[in-house]
Amino acid sequence: MMNDISDFKAVCEAAKRSSVKLAALPDDLRTGILLEIAAELDRAADAVLSANREDCRAAEADLKSGEMTQALYNRLKLTPEKAGGLSVYAKSVSALSGSLNTVDYACKLDDGLVLERIRCPLGLIAAIYESRPEVTVQVSCLALKSGNAVILKGGREALHSNRVLFGIIRDVLAGHKLADCVVLAENREQIRQILTMKGTVDMIIPRGSNTFVQYIRDHSAIPVLGHADGICHIYLDEGADPVKAVRIITDAKLSYPAACNAVETLLCHPASEQTTTAELLDREGIAYHPAHDNTWRTEYSGPGLSVKQVSSIDEAIRHINTYGSGHTDAIITENDLHAAQFIREVDAASVFHNASTRFADGYVFGLGAEVGISTEKIHARGPVGIEGLLTTKYVLRGAGHARSDYTDNPERAKDGQKNYTHQPLRR
Amino acid sequence: MMNDISDFKAVCEAAKRSSVKLAALPDDLRTGILLEIAAELDRAADAVLSANREDCRAAEADLKSGEMTQALYNRLKLTPEKAGGLSVYAKSVSALSGSLNTVDYACKLDDGLVLERIRCPLGLIAAIYESRPEVTVQVSCLALKSGNAVILKGGREALHSNRVLFGIIRDVLAGHKLADCVVLAENREQIRQILTMKGTVDMIIPRGSNTFVQYIRDHSAIPVLGHADGICHIYLDEGADPVKAVRIITDAKLSYPAACNAVETLLCHPASEQTTTAELLDREGIAYHPAHDNTWRTEYSGPGLSVKQVSSIDEAIRHINTYGSGHTDAIITENDLHAAQFIREVDAASVFHNASTRFADGYVFGLGAEVGISTEKIHARGPVGIEGLLTTKYVLRGAGHARSDYTDNPERAKDGQKNYTHQPLRR
Repeated sequence: MMNDISDFKAVCEAAKRSSVKLAALPDDLRTGILLEIAAELDRAADAVLSANREDCRAAEADLKSGEMTQALYNRLKLTPEKAGGLSVYAKSVSALSGSLNTVDYACKLDDGLVLERIRCPLGLIAAIYESRPEVTVQVSCLALKSGNAVILKGGREALHSNRVLFGIIRDVLAGHKLADCVVLAENREQIRQILTMKGTVDMIIPRGSNTFVQYIRDHSAIPVLGHADGICHIYLDEGADPVKAVRIITDAKLSYPAACNAVETLLCHPASEQTTTAELLDREGIAYHPAHDNTWRTEYSGPGLSVKQVSSIDEAIRHINTYGSGHTDAIITENDLHAAQFIREVDAASVFHNASTRFADGYVFGLGAEVGISTEKIHARGPVGIEGLLTTKYVLRGAGHARSDYTDNPERAKDGQKNYTHQPLRR
Repeated sequence: MMNDISDFKAVCEAAKRSSVKLAALPDDLRTGILLEIAAELDRAADAVLSANREDCRAAEADLKSGEMTQALYNRLKLTPEKAGGLSVYAKSVSALSGSLNTVDYACKLDDGLVLERIRCPLGLIAAIYESRPEVTVQVSCLALKSGNAVILKGGREALHSNRVLFGIIRDVLAGHKLADCVVLAENREQIRQILTMKGTVDMIIPRGSNTFVQYIRDHSAIPVLGHADGICHIYLDEGADPVKAVRIITDAKLSYPAACNAVETLLCHPASEQTTTAELLDREGIAYHPAHDNTWRTEYSGPGLSVKQVSSIDEAIRHINTYGSGHTDAIITENDLHAAQFIREVDAASVFHNASTRFADGYVFGLGAEVGISTEKIHARGPVGIEGLLTTKYVLRGAGHARSDYTDNPERAKDGQKNYTHQPLRR
């Protein structure tokens, strides 16, 4: 579509400018746009499926030659049911309460001098992902709802699917003179360009392999939201309920072993009835890896896990804070003090008590959808929905006020200097 | 104090571990620690002054030889009044409502499966600054109140002052077995080490020259909170009130020309009575620089500013979004539509209407104090107080719940799969 380098840059700059118009719309108009997208996705389900079949045909060759994994192929393929369900994402995001333009702090500094902090869009977001065409819909909808323009760079393997989905979204936006707000990137040179566009692109959301996410982090000054690793732990405490233990561990490992929130390491207290648990896990077909220092950072992406005996909850927490990726860790225990300590001291985005690590997900958490899961501590941590695509702006309204009329230290005001009233205002 | 490289690393790791104990204290105990620090600062005011005099004696030589600027010297020097006021910072931070450990999102996912998002400390923060000894007190107090351990690296020129202040703070903490929570770094090799401690150090807060802040950003994978430039603008709209204009521009330029929130560029609409304004500004001794493309990013740090005529508010906004640093920009206008457009479209941390840019400050904004001002859009934007030193953690409590029992799509549940209830809970 776009081959020229300067063209692509200009298109991204136009998207950034357009985001201002999008953000200026009343919230119900942005909601309406998402509902139109939902309707168009339903209407165009056949076209989406047919484009996806084209992608799948090419992918099947790569699958045979070993250039593509079965897992990647499964994520690429849209069943008629899945294609028909794409509109659900647009509808569920449209229904989220819009925190855009809300005031999250307000304070009267003095008569006629009022401060507000308002939530506003980041501006232009770039999502770089692979395979799953539904990400195109999810990310676009979250971006548009939050008033952000978005650059979409899907995988080469999903090119036809993404072109059709992108076309649907862009056409709806064109009806509101906002077609510029979405950009489809289709090649690696454009990724390279995105990485250099600090100031134009406000955030990059990479979804893919550890190596890929790390590459993006290492090659751009633009903030990156995402996670490289998903080394999730379960600590089986002394006196853990073995029935709960088996339910949780089985689900955490087997319900979707390739997911980033699947468990990779099981830490067992000697008094945790681990023998019972071991037999039960054997029965479920979970492979034990009596692991060592080199395997504590292994993502199995299959039905295996590392197992370590730890002598105390303190040792378990220390192990997790040393080898974990800060994604999701769980404790299985009937001891509430241990649960509280684990929750307080484990340094991770999600910390669970007697629940499967697999629950770490934006939809599950009630965020509507997610643009990704962040293992960074700053900005947004854990599953990221609309809130993670917003920033804030301090707005001060005066009537010619000058700072030199006020003192910075109420105990040392100079002659004629006033104190601030600092009266919190209801929002 | 510490000369050995591995020692320093071990000390920082111990600080990180200690932060967990600090964060586990009830909020009123952390408040009590700050009040103790305030009392000790008052008691030790003479010792602080005497150490500061020692720093100043060395600095005076550097001042004469031209190795130190007068501005830096002024920031270094503590008057008896200033030294006596250091405890005010500790007291005002102690009085802030502690948002640590509060729940900012809560949702019942199903019976017995409850999600909460709690606010928790980042862990270990490193502040790197120069000259002003009061920063040692401000940053320590904000860090301790928010449950964070802190590495303090002040300027070489303030070494004796900082050692005494650090000693006071550490001794109070020692009384609570928390002495490890504060670390004093004293040389450049330790800065270099801090930059490499990703995973141990959670955030770096550099305060200093543009070049210095940029150096830190370029040489560390650790998140950096701060601002490199402070290119603040005032746009004088058509029909602006000339009296307000002069008050605001004079204050924004002259009340503290070296401050990052001082105005550097004045954009004038031809119909803004700029001639009147020009005469008045002349009278105040503000030097006009009829500027050109090369000066739009100049920080004068003195009584000068760049002046540009713009033909419309749109051109003014475009200029600011092109050349500004996203710090603080103001419009002077009696036209409310123009004010609203300016506030909406200017992409900066602080956007003001009829008020001086100099108001952009944590204390002024009612945040108690600030660790710095951020021009990044992510995490914390503008003056940063306690909130910017916190992250969040998702806590899910269940009773053996497994994800495979639930459907991700209410319209396509498999046999026996349940829907989430997603019932928002009062916090």
